[in-house]
Amino acid sequence: MTEPHVAAAGTSPLGRTDLTGRDLFAAALTEAFEGLPDPADVVDAVYVGNQSESYEGQIMYGTLLAEWAGLRHVPAERVEGCAAAGAMALRHAVEDVRTGRRDAVLACGVEKMTAGGTGGATTALASAFDRALEARSGVTAPSQYALLARRYLHETEATERDLARIAVKNHANAVANPRAQFRREVDVETVLDSDYVAPPLKLYDCAPLTDGGAAVLVVSDDVASTLPGGTVRVAGVAAGANNIAVAERNLSFVEGAHEVTTRAYADAGIDPADVDVAEVHDAFTVSEALLAEAAGLAPRGRGFESALPPAERSAGWTDTRLSTSGGLKARGHPIGATGLAQAVEVYEQLTGTATPERQVDDATTGLLINEGGVADAVTVAHVLAT
Amino acid sequence: MTEPHVAAAGTSPLGRTDLTGRDLFAAALTEAFEGLPDPADVVDAVYVGNQSESYEGQIMYGTLLAEWAGLRHVPAERVEGCAAAGAMALRHAVEDVRTGRRDAVLACGVEKMTAGGTGGATTALASAFDRALEARSGVTAPSQYALLARRYLHETEATERDLARIAVKNHANAVANPRAQFRREVDVETVLDSDYVAPPLKLYDCAPLTDGGAAVLVVSDDVASTLPGGTVRVAGVAAGANNIAVAERNLSFVEGAHEVTTRAYADAGIDPADVDVAEVHDAFTVSEALLAEAAGLAPRGRGFESALPPAERSAGWTDTRLSTSGGLKARGHPIGATGLAQAVEVYEQLTGTATPERQVDDATTGLLINEGGVADAVTVAHVLAT
Repeated sequence: MTEPHVAAAGTSPLGRTDLTGRDLFAAALTEAFEGLPDPADVVDAVYVGNQSESYEGQIMYGTLLAEWAGLRHVPAERVEGCAAAGAMALRHAVEDVRTGRRDAVLACGVEKMTAGGTGGATTALASAFDRALEARSGVTAPSQYALLARRYLHETEATERDLARIAVKNHANAVANPRAQFRREVDVETVLDSDYVAPPLKLYDCAPLTDGGAAVLVVSDDVASTLPGGTVRVAGVAAGANNIAVAERNLSFVEGAHEVTTRAYADAGIDPADVDVAEVHDAFTVSEALLAEAAGLAPRGRGFESALPPAERSAGWTDTRLSTSGGLKARGHPIGATGLAQAVEVYEQLTGTATPERQVDDATTGLLINEGGVADAVTVAHVLAT
Repeated sequence: MTEPHVAAAGTSPLGRTDLTGRDLFAAALTEAFEGLPDPADVVDAVYVGNQSESYEGQIMYGTLLAEWAGLRHVPAERVEGCAAAGAMALRHAVEDVRTGRRDAVLACGVEKMTAGGTGGATTALASAFDRALEARSGVTAPSQYALLARRYLHETEATERDLARIAVKNHANAVANPRAQFRREVDVETVLDSDYVAPPLKLYDCAPLTDGGAAVLVVSDDVASTLPGGTVRVAGVAAGANNIAVAERNLSFVEGAHEVTTRAYADAGIDPADVDVAEVHDAFTVSEALLAEAAGLAPRGRGFESALPPAERSAGWTDTRLSTSGGLKARGHPIGATGLAQAVEVYEQLTGTATPERQVDDATTGLLINEGGVADAVTVAHVLAT
């Protein structure tokens, strides 16, 4: 068994753009392959994370993007698990290389969320809920996450101000990230004064709609040795589906994410305390708090301290820096591409190529947590290491 | 490396039903696991082939069906490649087991085509065309395949009557298949007298809209030895994406399917002449002729003889029996489940459990060709053997 390596990574511009899905992919691929051989000379399989066909009315993104990359007759397909699709694509690339089945696999993701307008996105995102049990009632993603937030504030000492600090921290990180959709600071009062989308969640507690593409090249030891530029090992991976209906889950502890991250740590042979940087799935501010706890980075009930400097957090917290990219909240959340945008950030952190303002000194181990559906309907976790 | 085995297979009723997607899956799973341990005690990963969310407005079918099967925290995801999604799911199950990554993987497919009505299906199927180059012009699946049929009739000695005979043969096969959507004979005149959908293709040249689910359990040698019932080896597998726009492809030879089936034969160590039974992707009658040629079962330009008894076919034809299930034409074509319905038929043929009227004597090797998009936008091929 060879060890998989991330040998290249790139993204398109993230935000509201005039680019189509294929153009967003092309932009990400072009950045990822700068200085590398042509994709057609290297890549032997393609996986595409894409959440919904309803934005552009386009399926068959596997064939479409493989062709766009100049490839013919290689295995290429779309994988879908709502917002976890990007990490699902990465998981296939990692496992294809790890098992020796392939030498160089392209994991990419693309979402053109603004194509259908906001109403289109709301409907597209609702298609991830159980149609028979939940979606038909008209619930939306914010209203579902509001249930989790309300419960979290009830069961812990966290306040809406604590959740606001997570948004403030992620906006501050995004200022230092040239890829980020929102490169501007916000203060706690601005977050607290923003309109309620679904109480207790306010506008600034929510990730935005984002058009975007991301591409990551995963290669074997042999191929890695032939390519220029830094590489990062993929030391661990795990994935697991929980149930789909939120009503039937623990609202204050995302046990699916706990199960999956525990497996990813074991696969990598590390403990939570070893994680220097983590990109967690902060679709809403409360998600970052919940996932910090599920991943063992924070003690139960104290995940809301993720915005505090490590020295000021409660006992039991690791020194992990969370969402240095700005997270889904401020870097942006192009659904099917998000899991790969997370990988791009950790790749830069571990290769020391992040901008100085956000580069974490001596970062050697990074965690990626990508989720689909509400909270942990499905979770995919990767551990990257130098 | 262990050899993957198909250890169980089942389908739901195929046709226009009142069952939802999850119910179609449940029916298929129940048949497949009759006499076997509970899925939760055996299955360690789930792949779901599903073409379009637009029928039911439901994504996240990986999590949804894993939960429906009683599974928690196992990797589960939807794979999508239009009508090839079912075989893509099967490919993952086969490669997961072959590489030793998993011991028992459930490959399933589900499509609820009638949920959106006929107009819904036409739009859903058109989403598989290149949005920028073709779909926007208003082309439909029949109109795209009509281009292939027109060219085929121009370049070969085939006539519309020859294509009609393929429909007649597949309807005759379906009479003997309890799973088939259309269990009634049709004669050549009925086919020729049916209305043109897109000349030269008539109503009876086209596969129908089908609601349906199919499930196939792929296991390792070790697990196979612990399960009751017959098993069949998965001796070969290959997949490849071609380009997506029909206008840029060879209309009279599906070279993507030729490339992929050639690789599948090599993987299995067989020649086309070894194939006793083949389920080919006859979305339209001309597809069966084109695929017989692409797969090396028929000489170039003579694939339209697939309905003839082997002894009456041109020199260069193999003795392969095509689409003994009735094919997409008469067994039915539940898009994301079709590739797995093909596997169910060949599993029954190779275990000698097909109904006597359609059982091929001494069948030991079977071929599955599943395609997505128009003709070979993407092709997945499997070779099953006793």
